[in-house]
Amino acid sequence: MKISIIPYAAAARAELTRGKTVVVIDVLRATSVMLTALANGAREFVPAISPEEALQKSLLYNPDDILLAGEQQTVKIEGFQLGNSPLEYTPEKVKGKTIIMSTTNGTKALNSCLNAETVLIGAFLNAEAVADKLSDKEDVVLFCSGTNNNFSLDDGMCAAKITDEIIKHSTQQPELSDFAQLLLKTYRSDSLENILQSCYHLNLLKQKGFENDVTYCLQNSLYTMVPTMNLISKSIQ
Amino acid sequence: MKISIIPYAAAARAELTRGKTVVVIDVLRATSVMLTALANGAREFVPAISPEEALQKSLLYNPDDILLAGEQQTVKIEGFQLGNSPLEYTPEKVKGKTIIMSTTNGTKALNSCLNAETVLIGAFLNAEAVADKLSDKEDVVLFCSGTNNNFSLDDGMCAAKITDEIIKHSTQQPELSDFAQLLLKTYRSDSLENILQSCYHLNLLKQKGFENDVTYCLQNSLYTMVPTMNLISKSIQ
Repeated sequence: MKISIIPYAAAARAELTRGKTVVVIDVLRATSVMLTALANGAREFVPAISPEEALQKSLLYNPDDILLAGEQQTVKIEGFQLGNSPLEYTPEKVKGKTIIMSTTNGTKALNSCLNAETVLIGAFLNAEAVADKLSDKEDVVLFCSGTNNNFSLDDGMCAAKITDEIIKHSTQQPELSDFAQLLLKTYRSDSLENILQSCYHLNLLKQKGFENDVTYCLQNSLYTMVPTMNLISKSIQ
Repeated sequence: MKISIIPYAAAARAELTRGKTVVVIDVLRATSVMLTALANGAREFVPAISPEEALQKSLLYNPDDILLAGEQQTVKIEGFQLGNSPLEYTPEKVKGKTIIMSTTNGTKALNSCLNAETVLIGAFLNAEAVADKLSDKEDVVLFCSGTNNNFSLDDGMCAAKITDEIIKHSTQQPELSDFAQLLLKTYRSDSLENILQSCYHLNLLKQKGFENDVTYCLQNSLYTMVPTMNLISKSIQ
């Protein structure tokens, strides 16, 4: 198996994802939100690259069936029912709903790998299940969404955790790209808390009062589910 | 001071370099070659993005004043006088010459930061001098050229060494991007030899018989010179 990494959404190029198994990771917070909502009974996610696109897509649905969700610069979009805090996505709110979601980085990442063979949704919350699902693949791309078009260490460490889990459970040593080697080496060198201590986006969220979100999203393998993106409808289910 | 990193040439975008102090790093081997040749008396480098462009640019010079140099897929370009091995750039060959150089990654990196305020040439060979030169800058970008449009760990570790040297000699702690934090943490966790053990490009060069080049290029601070790219003539001198 080959494992390579896309460091942030703006660094994606068509040839990096074409025909491959891609795991989109946006730990803080889009993919953590998706996992939580789907675990709590949401029917599916429809990613949108902007609030305007989310509103346009919502016109295709019965208003009772959908929720509009998303954030811009960490804050809930005005008029939308849900923000980007996983703790909002309770069973009472999301059960049976289609969630149309615009986020700054995560949905951009999803939309830039539509040429992949399979797109999986990954986060710390399902890292072990993702690793298990990848075990028989030849060519795996871990796509770190990043923050504001830059690399974000929380996504990188989640990619390292998935890589570490794959290595633990495989008989053959996977071939790691230089970036994957770098992430794994750092991941194994210290505790996650220490590594993420000065991480930009994590600290920004803490400053804005989302400390509980951060704690929640860094939990390991709370879920065994690995959602896939359905590339025909471009919805996640 | 802020320190941020561009992981590879294909991930560069205009807003990352505009108006900033950028250090272009291509340890194996373009920037190591430039340093060696300039230290050995070469007059200047003219970067070209392809062998064809190098030939076109060469028509502007007296043939006695120039050398055509460069590689494609690690091998010297047919008809060119010099390849990409720093050990070829002896004083006898390069003294007083303008070297028109096309390389796979390094010159592409140089050409993608023409909007920077200053572009410096960095490698392990002058890492301490680069750090010293950056000490009074506000906003520093370390541009890892990479290999085949991907991140290369040798460039990353050189960026980490420069960052480490800056921190050692500054009174104020610089603000590191997440990527800079990641590189520095790995750099400090182990010996360079261990970190680069499975590095793709380094091992490819060794396989192709360039082991001496690798050993040479990983030497620390052999030179105190920090060449800058002259953005008007687009030549390096």
